[in-house]
Amino acid sequence: MAKQRVGFIGLGLMGAPMAANVARAGYPLLVYNRSGDKAAPLRELGAAVVETPKEVAAGSDVVITMLSDASAVEQVLRGEDGLLAGGRPGMLLIDMSTVAPEQSRSIAIEIGARGWQMLDAPVFGSTGPAKDGKLGIMVGGDAALFEAQRELLGVLGKFLTHLGPQGAGAVAKLAFNLMVAAQLTSLAEAMTLAARGGVEAQKMAEVILASNVSSELIQRKVGSIVSGNFAPAFPLRHMHKDLGLMIDTGHAMMVPLPATAAIHELFTTAMARGRGDQDSMAIYGLLAELAGLR
Amino acid sequence: MAKQRVGFIGLGLMGAPMAANVARAGYPLLVYNRSGDKAAPLRELGAAVVETPKEVAAGSDVVITMLSDASAVEQVLRGEDGLLAGGRPGMLLIDMSTVAPEQSRSIAIEIGARGWQMLDAPVFGSTGPAKDGKLGIMVGGDAALFEAQRELLGVLGKFLTHLGPQGAGAVAKLAFNLMVAAQLTSLAEAMTLAARGGVEAQKMAEVILASNVSSELIQRKVGSIVSGNFAPAFPLRHMHKDLGLMIDTGHAMMVPLPATAAIHELFTTAMARGRGDQDSMAIYGLLAELAGLR
Amino acid sequence: MAKQRVGFIGLGLMGAPMAANVARAGYPLLVYNRSGDKAAPLRELGAAVVETPKEVAAGSDVVITMLSDASAVEQVLRGEDGLLAGGRPGMLLIDMSTVAPEQSRSIAIEIGARGWQMLDAPVFGSTGPAKDGKLGIMVGGDAALFEAQRELLGVLGKFLTHLGPQGAGAVAKLAFNLMVAAQLTSLAEAMTLAARGGVEAQKMAEVILASNVSSELIQRKVGSIVSGNFAPAFPLRHMHKDLGLMIDTGHAMMVPLPATAAIHELFTTAMARGRGDQDSMAIYGLLAELAGLR
Amino acid sequence: MAKQRVGFIGLGLMGAPMAANVARAGYPLLVYNRSGDKAAPLRELGAAVVETPKEVAAGSDVVITMLSDASAVEQVLRGEDGLLAGGRPGMLLIDMSTVAPEQSRSIAIEIGARGWQMLDAPVFGSTGPAKDGKLGIMVGGDAALFEAQRELLGVLGKFLTHLGPQGAGAVAKLAFNLMVAAQLTSLAEAMTLAARGGVEAQKMAEVILASNVSSELIQRKVGSIVSGNFAPAFPLRHMHKDLGLMIDTGHAMMVPLPATAAIHELFTTAMARGRGDQDSMAIYGLLAELAGLR
Repeated sequence: MAKQRVGFIGLGLMGAPMAANVARAGYPLLVYNRSGDKAAPLRELGAAVVETPKEVAAGSDVVITMLSDASAVEQVLRGEDGLLAGGRPGMLLIDMSTVAPEQSRSIAIEIGARGWQMLDAPVFGSTGPAKDGKLGIMVGGDAALFEAQRELLGVLGKFLTHLGPQGAGAVAKLAFNLMVAAQLTSLAEAMTLAARGGVEAQKMAEVILASNVSSELIQRKVGSIVSGNFAPAFPLRHMHKDLGLMIDTGHAMMVPLPATAAIHELFTTAMARGRGDQDSMAIYGLLAELAGLR
Repeated sequence: MAKQRVGFIGLGLMGAPMAANVARAGYPLLVYNRSGDKAAPLRELGAAVVETPKEVAAGSDVVITMLSDASAVEQVLRGEDGLLAGGRPGMLLIDMSTVAPEQSRSIAIEIGARGWQMLDAPVFGSTGPAKDGKLGIMVGGDAALFEAQRELLGVLGKFLTHLGPQGAGAVAKLAFNLMVAAQLTSLAEAMTLAARGGVEAQKMAEVILASNVSSELIQRKVGSIVSGNFAPAFPLRHMHKDLGLMIDTGHAMMVPLPATAAIHELFTTAMARGRGDQDSMAIYGLLAELAGLR
Repeated sequence: MAKQRVGFIGLGLMGAPMAANVARAGYPLLVYNRSGDKAAPLRELGAAVVETPKEVAAGSDVVITMLSDASAVEQVLRGEDGLLAGGRPGMLLIDMSTVAPEQSRSIAIEIGARGWQMLDAPVFGSTGPAKDGKLGIMVGGDAALFEAQRELLGVLGKFLTHLGPQGAGAVAKLAFNLMVAAQLTSLAEAMTLAARGGVEAQKMAEVILASNVSSELIQRKVGSIVSGNFAPAFPLRHMHKDLGLMIDTGHAMMVPLPATAAIHELFTTAMARGRGDQDSMAIYGLLAELAGLR
Repeated sequence: MAKQRVGFIGLGLMGAPMAANVARAGYPLLVYNRSGDKAAPLRELGAAVVETPKEVAAGSDVVITMLSDASAVEQVLRGEDGLLAGGRPGMLLIDMSTVAPEQSRSIAIEIGARGWQMLDAPVFGSTGPAKDGKLGIMVGGDAALFEAQRELLGVLGKFLTHLGPQGAGAVAKLAFNLMVAAQLTSLAEAMTLAARGGVEAQKMAEVILASNVSSELIQRKVGSIVSGNFAPAFPLRHMHKDLGLMIDTGHAMMVPLPATAAIHELFTTAMARGRGDQDSMAIYGLLAELAGLR
C-alpha cells in the first residue's frame, strides 16, 4: 500500500529532526517553514519545500504541526495562504505543539467544521530523542484514528500512548511539564538552602544523585548548577509559557495547583530579570540571587 | 583493637534495624527505648538493655540517637536520668535524627560545654535500606571525627559523605527532604490535573514512568495513587514536621523557598483534615478532594 | 446643544441601574440585553429597547458596554447582528466591563480598524453606588476623548480619573480588585487563625474594626464571617475570573504576583468545592473547612 | 487606695513612651533597660532606674515587658539577675511583646510554677498612639485579672479587650499583623502591576484612596510608594519575624495560611537583599526590583 503523503510545519529545534525522520522513513514529505533556510537539509532528504501552509495542505493526506504555541498554530491555519484554505474534508491534522487542552479542542472544533480530523499529540523528550526517533508521544482524539497513525507516529517516537478524547494529549503534556518545572525548582531551592548552610554544590549534588529522588532530568541538570552554565536546552521562556498554560488550565478546569502557582511566579520573576533565553535551570541562578548569594 | 562500645537510643521503624546492624557487626551494644518491648529483638542479638539514657552514656564510647525530633533529643539529654548525667568528657554523640541545623548546633554547643563531641548524621533511605545497612548518611562536624567513625557508620549505610561543619548534615537532610516533598506534591498536582482532563490514572502513570522525570521515589509512590492505598511508609505528619523545619531554616538563613512554602501549607491542610497518619503520598488524596474529584 | 445618543448593552446587577441613570439624565437611550425582560424598567424611563447590538450601534453616538467578560464583549461586537455591523466611523465605544488590558487593547485595535474610537472605563463600587451614580471610573484611552465624555461619565460616577493610554483603566481595575481579594483573603486567614486560637469571631472582628487595617470593605464584610451568611454581593466566581485575569496580566507583563497567585489557587479550590455562587467572602468558609473547623 | 507599684522592662520605640505614660499617671515606677541611657527621660518623670530585672521584680507588684521577641523575654526572666530571681508568689507579669501563643503559654507555665500570674497583652498602633496612650490592647489570660488591671492598661490604650485564655492576646496580635502584612504586600503588588501597565503611582494611589479598600494603614503608607522613601516606622525585619511566628503558629495549630506563606517568603527575600532596616513598606521596593522596574 502506498504511504500517505505527509506535510510538516514547524522546523524548529524539535521539528527539523522530526521531519527528517519522516523523510528517511520513506514518506512523501512536503515542508513549510516561515524562514526558508531551515528547510534546506530536508530538501536533501527528498522533501519538497513549499511557500505556504496552503500548499502543504493541498499536497498532503496528513499534516503535522510542531509550533511554539497555539497562536502560531492558528496563524498557520488561517488566512488566504493558510492550511484551511488548501485542505479538504477527510484530511488529518496532528498537532504536536504544546498548547492548552482548551486551545486544542477549540482548534479541533474549528477544523472539524470543515470536515478535517485531528489528533493532539504533544511529545516529551528533547532534541536528542527527537533525532533518534525516541520521543514519547501523548495522544488525544479518536482511538481508531490513533491506531491508524501508529506507523507514522512510530517513526517519531518509541513510547506512543492514546490517553483519551481530544485534548487528553495536551493535558498530559502540561501535567508532565508541571513535574519538570517542579523538579527544576525544588532542585534550585534545595541547592540554595544547602549552599547557605555551608554545603558545597558538588557535595550536595552527590547526595541527590545517590538518593531516590534522582531522575534522568536531575542527572542532566544538576551539573549546570555546579558549573553555573545555563546554556539553553529548554529555554526558560518556554517553560514560563507552559506554566502559564498550566495555571490557565487549572483555572478553567477548577484544579488548584498551589505549588505550580508559586513556581510560575518564580519563573515570571526570572523573565522580568532577563533570564528568558537561559536554560530553565537558570531558575537556580535567580533563586541564588534572591537569597543574596550573588 | 577492641571495638568501641556503642549506645543506641531510639528504636523506632528506622532505629530498630539500624541498632540490629550495629549488634551484628560485633560492637558491644547498649540500648534504651522509652517502650521496653521494642528492645527484645536486640537482646537476642546480644545487646544489653538498660532503663535510662544515663546508663547508656555510662557504658558507651559513642552514643547514636535516632529520634523523632529535636525536642525528643533534648528530652533524652536532660534530667537526672539523661545522657548528660551519665556521660564524661571525650564521649561522642552521633545524632541521626532529622532536626534543623540551628537545633543541631544548639545541642552541639550544650554538650560541647561538657566536653562531649558531636556529629550530626541524618540519613536518607527508608526501612528497607535501614535493614540492609544501605542508608545514605550525611555528616556534619569535625572531618577527622567523621573519618574515625567511618567503620561504624559503614555498618549502617553504603553512601557516607562529610558535608561540612556542625549542622551541614542537618541542612543537607532538609534540602533532600524538600525534594522528596516537591516530587510527591508535583506528582499529586500532575495526576489531579490529568484526572480532571479525562486521562486515566494508570495511563498518566505510564507516561510519567516512561519519561525523564521518573525517579525511584516516584516509581515507588505512583502506584499508591492508582490504587488509592495510602498505608504509611513515611507518615504525612513526619513530612509536615520536616517542612516546618525547612521553612524555619529558610527564615533563619534568609533563603526564600516559595514552592516549599506552598507545599508546607498544603501539608498543613492535610494534617487539619486528618491525614497525618496516612503516607505522605496522601497529599494526592487531599488535592483530589480540593479539586472536587471525590 | 443636543445630547449625544447613548446605547447601553449589559443590563446586569450593575448595568441596569447605570443605564437608568443615563436615561434619567436626559440622554436619548437605546438598550439591548440578551434577556429582554430586564429592559422593561428602562422602557418606563423612556429608553428604546431593540433586538440586536447592531440596532444599538445604528442608533447611537456612544455605546457603553457593561458585560461579564471579554468574550461577552466580543460576542456583542461580532456576527451579522453585532455592534460592528451597525456602527460607522467616528463612533465611540466605552467598555466598562472588567477585562484584561491585553483584551481591551485587542478590542480597541479591532474596532479602530473600522474607524471607531474606544475608552476602557471599568468601575469600582458595587450596586449601591451604581444606583446612586457614585461609582469610581478608571479610564484609559485618549485624554481628549475622556474630557469630552466627562459629562456622561459624571452621570454614572463621582470619582472620574484618566489613567493613561488604552488599557490603563483595565489594568487599574485589576490592581484595585487585587487589593479587594487580598483584604478578603487575609481577613479569612486572620479570622481562622484567631478561631483556632480560641478567640471568638465577634471579639476578633471588634479588634480589626478598631484598628488601622479597617476599610469600608472590611467593615461591610466582617459581619458575614460572624454570622456565616455568604449571600452574594460580589459572587465568588466573578472574583475567581478576575484573579485569573490578574495572573494572566502579570504573566504577560512580567510582574510577579506571588501573594495573588496563592489567593487565586484558594479561589480555584472554592470554585471546585461549589462555592462559586456564594459571596467572595465565602473564601472564609472554605478556609475554615480546610482548617478542619467545620 | 495606694496605686500598685509598676515595673517596666523594654524601653524601645514603643516601650519608652508607654512607660512614660505609666509614670505620668502617678504609678510608682521602676524601670530597667539593657542600655541605660534610654531610661534618663523616665527618671525625670520620677521613675526609679535599676540595674537588673531582678531589682525590678523585687520592687514591683506588676511587671510589664515590652520586648522584641520571646527569647528577649526569656532572657529577662532567667539567670541570677533575672525577674524570676527577684519576684515572689502573687506577682503579675503583663507581657506586651509580640510572641507566638505557644511561647506565651510556655512562659506562663514556667512562671506559674513559681506562683506568678500572667496576662499576654500585645498591642496594635505605632509610636504615635503609644505616646498618646491610645493603643489597642488585646488581652489573654484570666478575665478577673484583666478587669483588675483595666485602670493601668487604660493608661496605655484606649481600646482594651479581653479575648480569652492565656495566649488569646498573642494569637489575636498575629492575626492582626497578618492583615497588616497582607495590606502592605497587596498594595505593593497592585502598584507594581499598575506601574508596569503604564499607570502613574500618584494616579493609582488616588484610585485606591478613593475606594472602599482604603484603610488608615494604606492612607499612611501609600505616600512612601509614590515618594520612594522607606524610612522605618515598623522595620521590615520585625514584620519578617512576625510572619515567621504566624507560619509557625499555623503549623502548630494546623491552620493553612497560603497567602501569608507567600508573603513570608517575599519578606525573606527582602531580608536577604538587605532591606531589613527599611520600613515594611519597602516590600514595594523589592517587588518593583523583582519586576525589573528598577
